[in-house]
Amino acid sequence: MVKKLKEICEFIDGELFGDGEIEIIGVSGIKEAREHEITFVANSKYIREIAHTQAAAIIVGPDITYAGKPLIRVASPYFAFVKVLEIFAWRKRKTEYGIHETAIIGQNVQIGEMVSIQAHTYIADNVQIGDGVTISPFVYIGDDTKIGDEVLIYPHVTIREEVEIGDRVIVHCGAIIGSDGFGFATVSDRHHKIPQIGTVILEEDVEIGANTTVDRATMTNGATIIKRGTKIDNLVQIAHNVVIGEDCTITAQAGIAGSSELKDRVTVAGQSGIVGHITIGEDSVVLAKSGVTKDIPAGSYVSGFPAEPHTHELRLQASLRKMPAMLNEFARLQQRVATLEAKLRQTYEKSTDS
Amino acid sequence: MVKKLKEICEFIDGELFGDGEIEIIGVSGIKEAREHEITFVANSKYIREIAHTQAAAIIVGPDITYAGKPLIRVASPYFAFVKVLEIFAWRKRKTEYGIHETAIIGQNVQIGEMVSIQAHTYIADNVQIGDGVTISPFVYIGDDTKIGDEVLIYPHVTIREEVEIGDRVIVHCGAIIGSDGFGFATVSDRHHKIPQIGTVILEEDVEIGANTTVDRATMTNGATIIKRGTKIDNLVQIAHNVVIGEDCTITAQAGIAGSSELKDRVTVAGQSGIVGHITIGEDSVVLAKSGVTKDIPAGSYVSGFPAEPHTHELRLQASLRKMPAMLNEFARLQQRVATLEAKLRQTYEKSTDS
Amino acid sequence: MVKKLKEICEFIDGELFGDGEIEIIGVSGIKEAREHEITFVANSKYIREIAHTQAAAIIVGPDITYAGKPLIRVASPYFAFVKVLEIFAWRKRKTEYGIHETAIIGQNVQIGEMVSIQAHTYIADNVQIGDGVTISPFVYIGDDTKIGDEVLIYPHVTIREEVEIGDRVIVHCGAIIGSDGFGFATVSDRHHKIPQIGTVILEEDVEIGANTTVDRATMTNGATIIKRGTKIDNLVQIAHNVVIGEDCTITAQAGIAGSSELKDRVTVAGQSGIVGHITIGEDSVVLAKSGVTKDIPAGSYVSGFPAEPHTHELRLQASLRKMPAMLNEFARLQQRVATLEAKLRQTYEKSTDS
Repeated sequence: MVKKLKEICEFIDGELFGDGEIEIIGVSGIKEAREHEITFVANSKYIREIAHTQAAAIIVGPDITYAGKPLIRVASPYFAFVKVLEIFAWRKRKTEYGIHETAIIGQNVQIGEMVSIQAHTYIADNVQIGDGVTISPFVYIGDDTKIGDEVLIYPHVTIREEVEIGDRVIVHCGAIIGSDGFGFATVSDRHHKIPQIGTVILEEDVEIGANTTVDRATMTNGATIIKRGTKIDNLVQIAHNVVIGEDCTITAQAGIAGSSELKDRVTVAGQSGIVGHITIGEDSVVLAKSGVTKDIPAGSYVSGFPAEPHTHELRLQASLRKMPAMLNEFARLQQRVATLEAKLRQTYEKSTDS
Repeated sequence: MVKKLKEICEFIDGELFGDGEIEIIGVSGIKEAREHEITFVANSKYIREIAHTQAAAIIVGPDITYAGKPLIRVASPYFAFVKVLEIFAWRKRKTEYGIHETAIIGQNVQIGEMVSIQAHTYIADNVQIGDGVTISPFVYIGDDTKIGDEVLIYPHVTIREEVEIGDRVIVHCGAIIGSDGFGFATVSDRHHKIPQIGTVILEEDVEIGANTTVDRATMTNGATIIKRGTKIDNLVQIAHNVVIGEDCTITAQAGIAGSSELKDRVTVAGQSGIVGHITIGEDSVVLAKSGVTKDIPAGSYVSGFPAEPHTHELRLQASLRKMPAMLNEFARLQQRVATLEAKLRQTYEKSTDS
Repeated sequence: MVKKLKEICEFIDGELFGDGEIEIIGVSGIKEAREHEITFVANSKYIREIAHTQAAAIIVGPDITYAGKPLIRVASPYFAFVKVLEIFAWRKRKTEYGIHETAIIGQNVQIGEMVSIQAHTYIADNVQIGDGVTISPFVYIGDDTKIGDEVLIYPHVTIREEVEIGDRVIVHCGAIIGSDGFGFATVSDRHHKIPQIGTVILEEDVEIGANTTVDRATMTNGATIIKRGTKIDNLVQIAHNVVIGEDCTITAQAGIAGSSELKDRVTVAGQSGIVGHITIGEDSVVLAKSGVTKDIPAGSYVSGFPAEPHTHELRLQASLRKMPAMLNEFARLQQRVATLEAKLRQTYEKSTDS
């Protein structure tokens, strides 16, 4: 794809300095950019890189006016840059509308406009598919599932029966939506399966990472729910009956155990775990590799296992690091006290002698 | 699906109080239940909810006789409830028997009665499939694999060559059974692949979670073995040559390294890791996020990393939490001892002076 | 497969003692071996097992000449054994060359010699496939991807667009190569997707484990790179823009966050995490369940979270284990000091009295 600089400038609503006719073929970081690519400077520490970049043009903030090459000046260079990335990203989405001849479509399936149902796909019965949806090869959609508009489902995704997927949701390769929750009734040491007949709801603008698993709820009216705008990374486990609020981010390999609730705008970093049946207050941050074992209030910033306020955890870590030296000093202090005791006994004996 | 209350009562062998003709369309928790659904009370702390539930009928224990609405009384309400869940779960299994025209079946494949081999499946050569087996879309079954009766394989599962799957096994979406173990011979810093030519055995009533991986054993006669009744959650790693006993449960994102053995009825909680070549004694419990680094005896209850008996780990955690205050007190105590030393020197000098 | 012992001897360039005409049908560990199988002794602690093994023949080192059964003597029995495993492993790779009729091949796809493109596969446009490549059922290969010679791709693998795969790479079942990196521009609490338009490069002899995910880089010229000879286990997360050096090993369920770099010959053990934007020096070892939070120099051997040199971490662990007893002793010491203080006050008062 080739775009003229003036077209890009118009798209991001910027102010153009220099030749708007130059042609841009890609977008890169300031150090990586090659000829005919556009880059950006959002952080003042990269300003010195302007002199060295091979980029053909630069998106800059209000503080920069000259760089020896064409500029687009905007209020927020970073945000403008993301929009430019989108221009070039569409190049990759070469969607052909229609239903491939190898797609298997069940009975009573409703399909919207401008939909791409690609090769080797399987759509079961009574599925509803909105407008502008892309269903990639090797995608399985179970009975009675509803898929909103402009949803993008990557290869090898399984969406099991009765799941609801909101508008503009993206599900990455290999993700499983609606697998059985892990529930058993154990009687005389034998584990009897508790059928998992609830469902999963992914609200609009949710993104689910590659090979992530989202289990369905246990009961008829139950649903594992991921609310609007929440983004989940790869290899994350979301157990049955979990509810995740709006605009959360959950990073790779984290796990949320059954029936826990994350309120809005919670951040869970990589490899963290959250036990079942607890609530994480809104705007809280759970740092990497933490294990949260009890409710935490809104606005918390926790780490460690069991997770504590991060300042507390840092203090514990610092204390622990002082322990080896402290143990030595402690032994020395015990010795000093023993010496004092001996001397005092002596002194006392002396003084009673006298 | 609609069931009369008296039909449900008969199925769970209960005692009916009230109108057995009412129609039940689903099953839910006592708080979530809607009209025309059945619920249960197994735990006395939920008895007060009976007055508020919208459920049409309630399964109760021997201690409850009146609730203002139809009841089914049983010895174990929870276990009865699981059976009722099963009634409504079957609604979802709308299996059509036969082999779909897009299924690819190799040479010399033996297929039992009442088998459903669904669209876009691949069965290699010399595979044996028992009665009542369901093979969902996008399932791959490798050469020489044996599958028992009433096995349920969800979409996107890979079962590689020579694996043995027992009766009533359930394999959830995206699970991989029989991938190569991670074994290399490192010579002059280069890693040479050790071919993994053993196999995997899943005994009867085993359940394998979504996107879980179970590696095959290294050698000709070797097998990674998961024994009868063991249930494994999502995203778990079972390495080559591992042996897992009967009736174990392994929760999401746990990992068992090569050649380790879990005896019967071991519980491994989420995100735990067990190093290679060790044995976990029967009836042991490994708590969440633990790292087990050495053999543990039967009946252990461990946590932490390196894992210790949980009471010990709790004591360590409690001690650590006392450290910041203790370090302050320690500095104060050092000061007090220094003061004592100074005074005693003074006293001693005085007393020697006198 | 049946091989004569003398054929095996020739293949591993050994010295034969005993009957070279005997027929070998498999290869096993010394304890597990059955009749007609070959085994090996590389470690002196297994020499006593020679008397008990049922194996038909044994591969031994220069120090053993007699075992009562046929021997092949070599300089390195372990390495020779791996080669023998390879002989018997090929039995399992019953590859049929050609393109299965259910494979879907895009436009302008170049395919080398001796290639096996199996059933239910999907190859998009402009893909280049080298010689001797195996593409198993349910594999998806995206647009413009290049695949080298003798690459082996197991079932259910997704390789997204523009990825480069070197010669002799092995990708195990369910792995995802080139999924979107987890990148968002957060403006007023809403997460706006940063399109991920870079790529992934897997150099020659790389192995990627089952259900592992390797994200693509963010920008036009960027690539997540895994260099020659590196082996990655199951369920590992490699985030966008990560660079992993040559001959590294990364064990199951480890995760490497965005833009971090591992130099050559780094070992990362299971369930470890490495934060973003740091560098792990060459020949370093990161032990299991560690969390590395900052750059570590070449040749490091670290554990814990935050990861420290392992000897340091062991000292911290040992100190922590002394804490409960130490806290008791500390209370006792405080008491002793208080007693001393009281006595000294007394003595001092007495001495001033006198």
